[in-house]
Amino acid sequence: MNAFDFLTPPRSGKPRKNGITMVLDKGMGPASARDLMEISSDYVDFIKFGWGTLPLHRRDTVKEKVDMYRSFDVEPYPGGTLFEIAHLNDKVEEYFQEARSLGFETLEISNGTVEIETEEKCRLIEMAVDEGFMVISEVGKKDPERDRLLEPDDRVRLVRADLRAGASMVLMEARESGQNIGIYDERGNIREDEFNHLTDRLPMDKIIWEAPQKSQQVYFILKIGPDVNLGNIPPEEITALETIRRGLRGDTLGKVNL
Amino acid sequence: MNAFDFLTPPRSGKPRKNGITMVLDKGMGPASARDLMEISSDYVDFIKFGWGTLPLHRRDTVKEKVDMYRSFDVEPYPGGTLFEIAHLNDKVEEYFQEARSLGFETLEISNGTVEIETEEKCRLIEMAVDEGFMVISEVGKKDPERDRLLEPDDRVRLVRADLRAGASMVLMEARESGQNIGIYDERGNIREDEFNHLTDRLPMDKIIWEAPQKSQQVYFILKIGPDVNLGNIPPEEITALETIRRGLRGDTLGKVNL
Amino acid sequence: MNAFDFLTPPRSGKPRKNGITMVLDKGMGPASARDLMEISSDYVDFIKFGWGTLPLHRRDTVKEKVDMYRSFDVEPYPGGTLFEIAHLNDKVEEYFQEARSLGFETLEISNGTVEIETEEKCRLIEMAVDEGFMVISEVGKKDPERDRLLEPDDRVRLVRADLRAGASMVLMEARESGQNIGIYDERGNIREDEFNHLTDRLPMDKIIWEAPQKSQQVYFILKIGPDVNLGNIPPEEITALETIRRGLRGDTLGKVNL
Repeated sequence: MNAFDFLTPPRSGKPRKNGITMVLDKGMGPASARDLMEISSDYVDFIKFGWGTLPLHRRDTVKEKVDMYRSFDVEPYPGGTLFEIAHLNDKVEEYFQEARSLGFETLEISNGTVEIETEEKCRLIEMAVDEGFMVISEVGKKDPERDRLLEPDDRVRLVRADLRAGASMVLMEARESGQNIGIYDERGNIREDEFNHLTDRLPMDKIIWEAPQKSQQVYFILKIGPDVNLGNIPPEEITALETIRRGLRGDTLGKVNL
Repeated sequence: MNAFDFLTPPRSGKPRKNGITMVLDKGMGPASARDLMEISSDYVDFIKFGWGTLPLHRRDTVKEKVDMYRSFDVEPYPGGTLFEIAHLNDKVEEYFQEARSLGFETLEISNGTVEIETEEKCRLIEMAVDEGFMVISEVGKKDPERDRLLEPDDRVRLVRADLRAGASMVLMEARESGQNIGIYDERGNIREDEFNHLTDRLPMDKIIWEAPQKSQQVYFILKIGPDVNLGNIPPEEITALETIRRGLRGDTLGKVNL
Repeated sequence: MNAFDFLTPPRSGKPRKNGITMVLDKGMGPASARDLMEISSDYVDFIKFGWGTLPLHRRDTVKEKVDMYRSFDVEPYPGGTLFEIAHLNDKVEEYFQEARSLGFETLEISNGTVEIETEEKCRLIEMAVDEGFMVISEVGKKDPERDRLLEPDDRVRLVRADLRAGASMVLMEARESGQNIGIYDERGNIREDEFNHLTDRLPMDKIIWEAPQKSQQVYFILKIGPDVNLGNIPPEEITALETIRRGLRGDTLGKVNL
């Protein structure tokens, strides 16, 4: 039983269909990661081992973290950049094999840095699904100049292609910073026109918005609702984000309906 | 004995009358929190379980953290927003009971988000004191637009009312960010006129300034002295703040008198 | 063996001649520090106990951390400000003795806050070397107004003097923030003219650039190469920095040669 449980209604438990939270692990120590899960794993659905961090850690450490996260019903997966590097080096088969051997069951397929044509990306999503992985794809470019070339309509088209190819969910790229990328301007504020264009046309339950900044999380929750899917949440903000979803923080108190 | 103990004079030990540091816990894992206390609990007087985070954690975890903090002579208390939610839901009695049952002996009474008239707030402070709690009250609004309506003279008046009602100390609201609120502008810089207005009229030993940013901490320590009371300190800044108080960091070296 | 080890070439191992990473410890709990070393100590060469934090911690805690870091082949050392305070108090001899007694074998000699003339600073470097310490010196002032008085040519001259006096490496001061100091402007962007002036004239393998911000780390790695020496890295960025060095992150993918 939770403390002061009479002060908040519950949210849907895991496994969740929506209201998903994806957290970014950029190299946490195994004991610290476990300690954080002990107190707040109920509010984490996915944890991403950010970009290409995995090859810097020992296999036994990674396996230990993968098993630990899964024991808390948190689904771990490697960052999309690592997959792009494997593709660039013609090592996609080895990538699937190593991922499976480390205990991963979910993969991210992206083309944020490496040039991978849409058709090829869709073929890779299909391949990963055929190999038995759940696929989360990502739409957007990590380089702001290249990302800016994507019109809102391009993003809609790319998300739809990924979903048709078999992706279970699609991430809207915003990197670790949430600035100067996708629907965010240089300070991390949301470009409302682009936001509305996307929300009018895309199935919200299939989209995970990367929203590392608190102001972005508040915006999405007030606009779309507490059950919006949010990603790239810093580990130390897990509980804080959940209070925003539940109206337990000034920003959304009395403004959300669970 | 401390390392290099011949390089700094001691500060007054706990329990302190002034020079109080209040730290913000927004969901730390219990082991990490304990580890931090092992090294730096001497420099923490109060720890606040931020806003409405408590209902997201299990009762046994919360109790364990409360007992752990107290074992280091750090006084834990629930954030004021949680009390406001209890008041909004007509559950003030249940709130006192649950707080006591979890081991809390100090409460924060605020009206930063929920509309609670000054008179009613004072009545609630009196109630909590009658129930045997030490009360820290808070003055200020979490919504910048509503907060801006408070003139410096209003803040002075509200602080005095809270103290008369029985609050042991009064927090000057600045949220987790310390930006665009109270005496801080959008970038967290201090509005000197308002600051001077308040310091000229209020008893400094009864005020805790929420000052999450380093530049704010330096400002207060240089203006008021190393024994100013500061709050909403991020856990990873506990030691850093104490070095600023002691003149052990470039910003205040040779400029403070202990 | 590392996870996905076929996706990255190795970097030179420790002890390294270049590509050095110095991390800033501003008061981490001993267990958290150990946990971080367990997963990422391969990417840390030096760890600095920031500015004057050491006198705030118990001798046994400090000794335990010093031994722990060294057991991971990470060389710990006290921040330069602490040495400056010892000098100001005429306690340089006691400083050397206490440092040795706590297990330190490396010291930082700086004059970032306390007024110490160049000649005297060089004499102190020589003294520390004579006492058997490895010396890392620092060039730059912590107060932006005083730091601004240093022309690029002054910095070149001061670095050379320190090296001649026996410093093994020289830190380019940028504080914890990396803003409004040295070659960084108020937002942490690099002043290219000054940067070029320094890199044209100084031996890169002897310089450690304090570069706390990610954009700064990316800049140095793209300009100087993955084996540039970088310092004041926040502990939570250890793995992230190494991915930038290795081309395992979008910012440098395909742009670095190991």
